[in-house]
Amino acid sequence: MNWQPVKNISTTLQQQIINWFTTQLGQGDLTPGMRLPSQRLLALQFNVNRSTINVVMEELKARGLIETRTGDGTYISEDSWQLLWKETHPKWQQHIDFSVHKPNDDTIQLINEYEQYEHIIRLGTGELSPSLIPTKQIEHSLRELSLTAPVLGYSVPQGSKELREALCHYLQKRGIHTTTNNILITSGALQAFQLIALGLLQPGSFIFQQEASYLNSVHSFQSAGMRMTSVKINEQLQQTLLTKKRNNQGLFYAIPTLDNPTGHCWSNTKRRLVLEACKALAIPIIEDDVYHELLFQPDNELPLKAYDQSGHVLYIGSVSKTLSPGLRIGWIVASESVIKRLADIKMQTDYGSSALSQQLVAHWLQSGMYEQHIKQLRHDLHQRAEFVEQLLQRYIQPYAKWQQPNGGFYIWLRFEKPIINKGLFLELLHQNILINPGYIYQPNDFHHLRLSFAYASYEQLEQGIRQLALAVKQR
Amino acid sequence: MNWQPVKNISTTLQQQIINWFTTQLGQGDLTPGMRLPSQRLLALQFNVNRSTINVVMEELKARGLIETRTGDGTYISEDSWQLLWKETHPKWQQHIDFSVHKPNDDTIQLINEYEQYEHIIRLGTGELSPSLIPTKQIEHSLRELSLTAPVLGYSVPQGSKELREALCHYLQKRGIHTTTNNILITSGALQAFQLIALGLLQPGSFIFQQEASYLNSVHSFQSAGMRMTSVKINEQLQQTLLTKKRNNQGLFYAIPTLDNPTGHCWSNTKRRLVLEACKALAIPIIEDDVYHELLFQPDNELPLKAYDQSGHVLYIGSVSKTLSPGLRIGWIVASESVIKRLADIKMQTDYGSSALSQQLVAHWLQSGMYEQHIKQLRHDLHQRAEFVEQLLQRYIQPYAKWQQPNGGFYIWLRFEKPIINKGLFLELLHQNILINPGYIYQPNDFHHLRLSFAYASYEQLEQGIRQLALAVKQR
Repeated sequence: MNWQPVKNISTTLQQQIINWFTTQLGQGDLTPGMRLPSQRLLALQFNVNRSTINVVMEELKARGLIETRTGDGTYISEDSWQLLWKETHPKWQQHIDFSVHKPNDDTIQLINEYEQYEHIIRLGTGELSPSLIPTKQIEHSLRELSLTAPVLGYSVPQGSKELREALCHYLQKRGIHTTTNNILITSGALQAFQLIALGLLQPGSFIFQQEASYLNSVHSFQSAGMRMTSVKINEQLQQTLLTKKRNNQGLFYAIPTLDNPTGHCWSNTKRRLVLEACKALAIPIIEDDVYHELLFQPDNELPLKAYDQSGHVLYIGSVSKTLSPGLRIGWIVASESVIKRLADIKMQTDYGSSALSQQLVAHWLQSGMYEQHIKQLRHDLHQRAEFVEQLLQRYIQPYAKWQQPNGGFYIWLRFEKPIINKGLFLELLHQNILINPGYIYQPNDFHHLRLSFAYASYEQLEQGIRQLALAVKQR
Repeated sequence: MNWQPVKNISTTLQQQIINWFTTQLGQGDLTPGMRLPSQRLLALQFNVNRSTINVVMEELKARGLIETRTGDGTYISEDSWQLLWKETHPKWQQHIDFSVHKPNDDTIQLINEYEQYEHIIRLGTGELSPSLIPTKQIEHSLRELSLTAPVLGYSVPQGSKELREALCHYLQKRGIHTTTNNILITSGALQAFQLIALGLLQPGSFIFQQEASYLNSVHSFQSAGMRMTSVKINEQLQQTLLTKKRNNQGLFYAIPTLDNPTGHCWSNTKRRLVLEACKALAIPIIEDDVYHELLFQPDNELPLKAYDQSGHVLYIGSVSKTLSPGLRIGWIVASESVIKRLADIKMQTDYGSSALSQQLVAHWLQSGMYEQHIKQLRHDLHQRAEFVEQLLQRYIQPYAKWQQPNGGFYIWLRFEKPIINKGLFLELLHQNILINPGYIYQPNDFHHLRLSFAYASYEQLEQGIRQLALAVKQR
């Protein structure tokens, strides 16, 4: 130990000694298990104060590089080498493991990953087929947008006034009469959940929902500490909610029209039951209404929001299922106090949604292009649904049951045997077929599969469903 | 009490009785303080089982409408009327008060609100003046975008490949050599913070930063339970960090080039100190580099990320300060494991950023339009900075000190007396002048004010600074 630190340079004496120490250790000049001289001796050797050595020792100890054995002096730790090499890289896995947000379920991560590849047949995708997105019309309509500098600046907290005005008008046809102050523009419906989770709910709150639920496939609420609870919607609902909730806060999540993943529509009675039970217990309702435009035949059922006089319903809409998910435009309709709160958090989260996307959607709503497009889309989806039903009858009928879809994207297949498990998922993935198994919507449900007739091409649908039938047959 | 519930209809007996009870109460037929008959008698009167009555009583009790006085039977609660009327509306304030996310500071909420109004002179706004946003060019470039259906679909988790490729190329000029797998597109820099807070940090982690810090004006980290801690950057930094952090996780937030709110640039020594201290302690660094393009003269200082061989630095960029905040496009450059994790959370949060915005930014980067625009912008901002400095010398010199800005948007005024408080903020707001007081960046700092020369018009700057001087003079 002939080295000594240099005085009067910008690196402190402590730091120089620590650096020297770790270099020696890294080079193998100091080895694990070695006994160090006493602090007094070290101070002499390095020609520094005892207090300097003391600080150095404390830091090395904190980093686990040395250890004190009572009554027996200080040693270089047995695992100091490992620690030293670890230290040069941040411990990301540790950071990730202890952080707030839940990772996506493993199956969902695989779905997200494999959806990128073009050769994959996507039987479960909740997205419009590329052929159903009016790409050329959107491209063309970009030329008709007239932008202003304020539009391209930071947005007002609630989002583009123009878009909110267009939405007020549009929502009237759905039986919802509201004002621009009751609307918040979000980056899709998913962000609306995130804002509600962070802005309106106490950790430990209950999120009530039907058994198979889209919400189980995303983690906005779980990551914020909410408890997902399935309930049956029947005459006892109010009692059930009360019993489960007790003194906690609660919130009811519902897709009354064209549910995800089941594709079902609620009867008027079911709507009334939920609305009344939640009203009586002051449980707010999230009404997710992103599919309603895609009913093949209008069913005359109004959304819950249309009956909501007292602000119980947080109504969510979006153009992701009808025009383009890439635009990332959705909205929440709610009481002013709620909108103000959620807008404040949105400002803290991402300062608003894309001005270009907002302008474009406003333009499509105002010009009537949106409505016209939807008509065509409904027709095309209906055709696809009929085609897929034929395929199901041909290939899947022996193994599963389903309801005829009356809109949207999905058929909820119920297989007699509990075979829709991770093994089947992986087996099909190996054949380049991606399915959305029921267990991502309801833990431990191995009977169901969400089939989407909206995404894959006709050829792919035929091939995919045939191969699905084969895989199922062998189980 | 002649009424009786009806059997064999869809509403349960319990529910009918509860509804009857609340109706009677609402009509004033039952009044607070009234004593109820015993459960046995009620069961007889309503011609139902004792157990039915029991459930009804429990629910009414849970809702606070009735109360049991020991040994003295059951009464209608004194505040039952209030409760009844309250119940018809969800208790939103209670929801808000107990929820996860912190509200914006009151002053910041006022700033967000008043920034909407055109008659307000915005002296502190961290945003390009409408005249500096290349609105017509952006509008024109929309015509040059060629969209495809996959682009308008749901994005891959990391965002547009085209934009990430363009960024790889662009970042090389900044001394950062990276790949598309190391980049995540975010909806502005602010969302990057949110993702890091949720995806990489344990609640209780320390966020280290300089004293006055932009991060104190947003709540991404605080709302996720992190502890904001100011540190001085000097030779003792490593020791300071170690002492404060102990066994907790930590993260260092830095804007080494054109800091917000101070506008200062770090020396090479300061950069080295932070990088070395954080490396030694395995503390990741967030390097917020959104202003660097706006240096009036290139200063030859490379970003920390350019020296980062081991993935310690999470590098953040954006076009919000240079092109248009309304596009909502930013990015994070980091290790693949980190990008994968943050991309997963982004998928759960909002399914990606606007495809239109991403395409547009890619187009501006690829075509060289971005670089050309920046040159002009730098020139214009420099002129504005010089104009404002003249105004400061004329009006503010007696009361405050500042450093000549060498880029960006801001001058960090230090007033001799601690007069930049909420009172002054409100007084100026009353005169239609909006300032960004130092206390939103550093609690209890009443000496500073962040002046922005980027937003207000020349006339407004003159008028605003003159009025600011008048207000200050009187204190």
